[in-house]
Amino acid sequence: MHTDRFFSPEPNIRKFARELYQASRKLPIISPHGHVDPSLFSDPAATFGNPVDLFITPDHYVIRTLYANGISLQALGLPLFEHTNPIDPRQVWKLFGSNFHLFRATPSGLWLSTSLHDVFGIQQKLNDETADSIYDDLQEKLNSPEFTPRALFKKFNIELLATTDSGADPLLHHQAIRSSEWSGNIVPTFRFDSLVHLNHPSWRSQIDDLAIVSKIDIINFSKYLQALQTRRDFFRSLGATASDFSALSAYVEECSTSQVDEIFQRALKNQCTPQDAERFTAHMLMEMARMSSEDGMVMQFHVGIFRNHNQPLYQQFGPDIGGDIPLAVEFTRNLRPLLQKFGNHLNFKLILFTLDESTYTRELAPLAGHYPALKLGPPWWFNDSLNGITRYLDLVIEGAGLYKTSGFNDDTRGFCSIPARHDLWRRLSANWIAGLFFRHIIDEKDAHQMMYDLSIGLTRRAYHLEDQGG
Amino acid sequence: MHTDRFFSPEPNIRKFARELYQASRKLPIISPHGHVDPSLFSDPAATFGNPVDLFITPDHYVIRTLYANGISLQALGLPLFEHTNPIDPRQVWKLFGSNFHLFRATPSGLWLSTSLHDVFGIQQKLNDETADSIYDDLQEKLNSPEFTPRALFKKFNIELLATTDSGADPLLHHQAIRSSEWSGNIVPTFRFDSLVHLNHPSWRSQIDDLAIVSKIDIINFSKYLQALQTRRDFFRSLGATASDFSALSAYVEECSTSQVDEIFQRALKNQCTPQDAERFTAHMLMEMARMSSEDGMVMQFHVGIFRNHNQPLYQQFGPDIGGDIPLAVEFTRNLRPLLQKFGNHLNFKLILFTLDESTYTRELAPLAGHYPALKLGPPWWFNDSLNGITRYLDLVIEGAGLYKTSGFNDDTRGFCSIPARHDLWRRLSANWIAGLFFRHIIDEKDAHQMMYDLSIGLTRRAYHLEDQGG
Amino acid sequence: MHTDRFFSPEPNIRKFARELYQASRKLPIISPHGHVDPSLFSDPAATFGNPVDLFITPDHYVIRTLYANGISLQALGLPLFEHTNPIDPRQVWKLFGSNFHLFRATPSGLWLSTSLHDVFGIQQKLNDETADSIYDDLQEKLNSPEFTPRALFKKFNIELLATTDSGADPLLHHQAIRSSEWSGNIVPTFRFDSLVHLNHPSWRSQIDDLAIVSKIDIINFSKYLQALQTRRDFFRSLGATASDFSALSAYVEECSTSQVDEIFQRALKNQCTPQDAERFTAHMLMEMARMSSEDGMVMQFHVGIFRNHNQPLYQQFGPDIGGDIPLAVEFTRNLRPLLQKFGNHLNFKLILFTLDESTYTRELAPLAGHYPALKLGPPWWFNDSLNGITRYLDLVIEGAGLYKTSGFNDDTRGFCSIPARHDLWRRLSANWIAGLFFRHIIDEKDAHQMMYDLSIGLTRRAYHLEDQGG
Repeated sequence: MHTDRFFSPEPNIRKFARELYQASRKLPIISPHGHVDPSLFSDPAATFGNPVDLFITPDHYVIRTLYANGISLQALGLPLFEHTNPIDPRQVWKLFGSNFHLFRATPSGLWLSTSLHDVFGIQQKLNDETADSIYDDLQEKLNSPEFTPRALFKKFNIELLATTDSGADPLLHHQAIRSSEWSGNIVPTFRFDSLVHLNHPSWRSQIDDLAIVSKIDIINFSKYLQALQTRRDFFRSLGATASDFSALSAYVEECSTSQVDEIFQRALKNQCTPQDAERFTAHMLMEMARMSSEDGMVMQFHVGIFRNHNQPLYQQFGPDIGGDIPLAVEFTRNLRPLLQKFGNHLNFKLILFTLDESTYTRELAPLAGHYPALKLGPPWWFNDSLNGITRYLDLVIEGAGLYKTSGFNDDTRGFCSIPARHDLWRRLSANWIAGLFFRHIIDEKDAHQMMYDLSIGLTRRAYHLEDQGG
Repeated sequence: MHTDRFFSPEPNIRKFARELYQASRKLPIISPHGHVDPSLFSDPAATFGNPVDLFITPDHYVIRTLYANGISLQALGLPLFEHTNPIDPRQVWKLFGSNFHLFRATPSGLWLSTSLHDVFGIQQKLNDETADSIYDDLQEKLNSPEFTPRALFKKFNIELLATTDSGADPLLHHQAIRSSEWSGNIVPTFRFDSLVHLNHPSWRSQIDDLAIVSKIDIINFSKYLQALQTRRDFFRSLGATASDFSALSAYVEECSTSQVDEIFQRALKNQCTPQDAERFTAHMLMEMARMSSEDGMVMQFHVGIFRNHNQPLYQQFGPDIGGDIPLAVEFTRNLRPLLQKFGNHLNFKLILFTLDESTYTRELAPLAGHYPALKLGPPWWFNDSLNGITRYLDLVIEGAGLYKTSGFNDDTRGFCSIPARHDLWRRLSANWIAGLFFRHIIDEKDAHQMMYDLSIGLTRRAYHLEDQGG
Repeated sequence: MHTDRFFSPEPNIRKFARELYQASRKLPIISPHGHVDPSLFSDPAATFGNPVDLFITPDHYVIRTLYANGISLQALGLPLFEHTNPIDPRQVWKLFGSNFHLFRATPSGLWLSTSLHDVFGIQQKLNDETADSIYDDLQEKLNSPEFTPRALFKKFNIELLATTDSGADPLLHHQAIRSSEWSGNIVPTFRFDSLVHLNHPSWRSQIDDLAIVSKIDIINFSKYLQALQTRRDFFRSLGATASDFSALSAYVEECSTSQVDEIFQRALKNQCTPQDAERFTAHMLMEMARMSSEDGMVMQFHVGIFRNHNQPLYQQFGPDIGGDIPLAVEFTRNLRPLLQKFGNHLNFKLILFTLDESTYTRELAPLAGHYPALKLGPPWWFNDSLNGITRYLDLVIEGAGLYKTSGFNDDTRGFCSIPARHDLWRRLSANWIAGLFFRHIIDEKDAHQMMYDLSIGLTRRAYHLEDQGG
């Protein structure tokens, strides 16, 4: 891994980008949105298992690339619903190694190479010849106390790590972390999805869980809202500053109390229609915005991903296997009811995420450049990449302004990829800023301030983390 | 402000871009579309007022950025509908200065900095410390005869300035300018919007005004068309070469005479429906094209902006406060009836503008690369920026060809930003051309010709200004 | 034509790009999709005619640019339906030459200049002064044996050339080529369009032709499918490895046997509705996928072009005169039935083409990055350009991975432009790879492998041509 990787080959830009990047390396990592499992940290004895457990099985980016190139999920050791399929992890790793060329010039390839190099000190390029010895090297390290989740948390210099948790989750691991002597700052995020999408397979059971943890008998919509608010308060007591929600579209519609209660009653009886589910989601976006404007939790909204697009594969292996596909998104008309009602509130913060880059200049930057409550999330999922980040900065900042963005989210399940992902963002931010400087758009003082802001300043402000350090 | 600003850091490109740019600086400014108030020039004693009157209050780009970052419009001195809110302009300016970092790397920031530096000779960077003295410096200059609108018009070397005026406007200021001894070439543009959008709040009163200025009793659709034609002729007698229209979509539909007259009669009685308004707009696009193909006025069409998206703010402060948001646009199917009927006429010229950049390669360049009547306007509004202009040139020219574009429009209300906006366009054009030259796509002779064309040649041809100079 | 044309001006990138490009020049051309007329090769005595026959009349890119700039198709010598319009080809050529500036910085301009220089050794820049002598020079060469189609086929080092042929075509020219002593490898491609689009003007007559060549009485849908399969087998016997289909949208719907047969019966009686035609196309996409998964022919699908948009011009001059305009396309929802049913089959290969670049990162790369059966075609039509290719590589590879793309297709009717088009692709590929190398994303070994793959490796794999050479 070259020390100047990802910087422009133009010598002046490269030199200044390096300087900006070096300054940012001293700053901690703030990870305000992601999917790391908190149980890795609640148990002091937890480990990452073997190299396949760490790098392959749980990483839907890795799985999808191998699957797309003709390798079956069984061969990667993924469990089928019906029966388990024991497979030697070393064989999986060797299959992975001999196909590592498939990851050339992809963000997964860069994260994997960076993690292997920076976290585990692997010097060789992964391929069919080196796979075996790299496996041994990794396993030896994973067995050592320097490579436990808690040890790496400190080594990675993580100031804050936010997980994503269902609103009905009792947050036992978070409570255990808080009550332990370990000082890592890990907070939950209130995720609405399975409690709001009436057509979600586990909606009914999640409502039962919600009733239990909130101690509220959810017999109608009003009680449901009350239960949600109770849980938001509980999440906040464990450090949460944000909620999260994902939907197919940004469609918002405020229903009357009687309309929404009727829908809710049908849902309780398992009788709701697809139209009910769509309207309920549309209405609940208004309720989430209202709750956020009242309790100050940041509202994150991830729009436009079609989950489990490949139904036959989903039926065999379940979700999160790389079969989620983006959709075109419309914000200007769809989100207007919410923005008109809450977008001017200074106590409300909404952060939008999309995979439809055509909305960057057309809708998102203009909206964020006007409504005080609105900020833009960093490039999401497939666009969290070398070119994706560069496009984002070039497309969004001119119209929204840097200070209507919210820094970087790694959004990862893979704890060991966190430094690699923030590193990519910081290198590309440094390179982008250096480009502005050498085209005389900003001066040197601006450049350093913008580097700090892109590294952690914007994130602190966007997620109300100003008081949590730095 | 660096003399080589906005050029590539690559030394060869920078050197040749500078050479091309320097040649273009000798050329006059032609401003064929914008929103400068003609009363600034009809009265020889007119001035720009104070720095806030000039740079903040009327500039919706500035207002939106400050508002989006939590600064109220009251604090910026914007008048509420209900009551005026007298505020010390110096305090507004200091608030602006202390928040000028919000404009980093935005086009507004570049225009403001360039205007302060190039027009008013301000050498300091605007911030909380310098705001006070810059205010004094600006005010002193604004009080002097060298900084009146008429003096700056000459200093800016403006060959032609087109304003935008309702078709019902008596054009008194334009008449006064024409009949004065002052030689500045300022022409009106025939704007259809408030006369065509049946749901426009002032449509009915505008029709009354139209009847008065045209001396035609507008009792039916036929008389309405006749009145419009009369006004087009009058606008042309004052130098107008173009009309302008803006709509939510590019939808065109030719209605029968009876259908359209029925809709018109309902509108006269304040009884038209939203569907009526939509169909009327769709039909009137055909009528505008027909009129243009007959009288030779260029038809400008700005598609896809949702005006006054933030209704609560609109109700307090009115339009043009930064709350207009773009929409996705479809041209291929929507515009087909118009293009099939008039797109092959050599006497018809249609210039299209959009904020939906996804249409550049997909629809606009292919359409302009085929229909003789069609040209593409420059990047509009939020895309009139460093990256927006570069994207436009890279995306549009390959498919449409340079000679199916129409040069640059500053489209501004801010007279003092005109040189800054043309300067940005010319610098980026020079940089783009130099890039083509060093990748050996064009030769040096081509490069110089293209620089002239992008500076003024294309504009002259697109707006029928060939005979007006140069 | 500069030897380093199209490479970055950055010296390191340019040097390495040149090295990569030089290595690729030794590789043959594989042209797996295009529209060259096979009769040029079946008759040993065939020639290209005069320079206008070769470069202007059949090239819809050239025609559209000249027409869009006010030159009539009559003046270019295009035949009207009603009567022929004899025109001196030299006059057409001079008109073309004096307007060659219209092609500045367009892909057509680059292809034309490259073809004139590389194939015909023209050293002068084409313009009004040089047009006459260039015409003479070209005509002299076109009359010589070194410039016959067969001679140039060898000179161009073409390993394989695929044409596009209606499924009802008896392929007489292909049979003649196969049975001749000439060794050029030219294969047909099975094109479904006129056999599937029930509203195609020649559908009924094509079905009659299909019945004759397949010797099957097409009295119902089942016989129709049987006839198509018979023809696929015949095409394969002449070397075809792929089919092709083009539709307005990617909409797929599996109809019941009775539904589709009823539609088919109405079509046979000339009684089908536009909805019938749309559903039939949607259903036939499923049938094509099934056939491909069974017989292993690659399924190419070109989505979203509105043919003959300019109806008045089409009525005068027919199709393929530059009046085809792209449409926005949706893949995620529309293509799902097909991908769910066949996308996991390892024997099925689908290659998608679109003109809607907004789908590159949003839909196409994610889909190809998941479904094993899916690959992405190269930038199509208007996007087969310097910037279009660069955008494609930057937008698609990160999400799909290089090995889910299918190399380059020239897709041309103009045989003499084939080397120019592959040359542009290879130069830009080299430049792109060199950029990755100097940002330390890939190493030197990767770079050389990727250059080979982009030149011919990916094409061989995508079109099942592994056994045909190299």
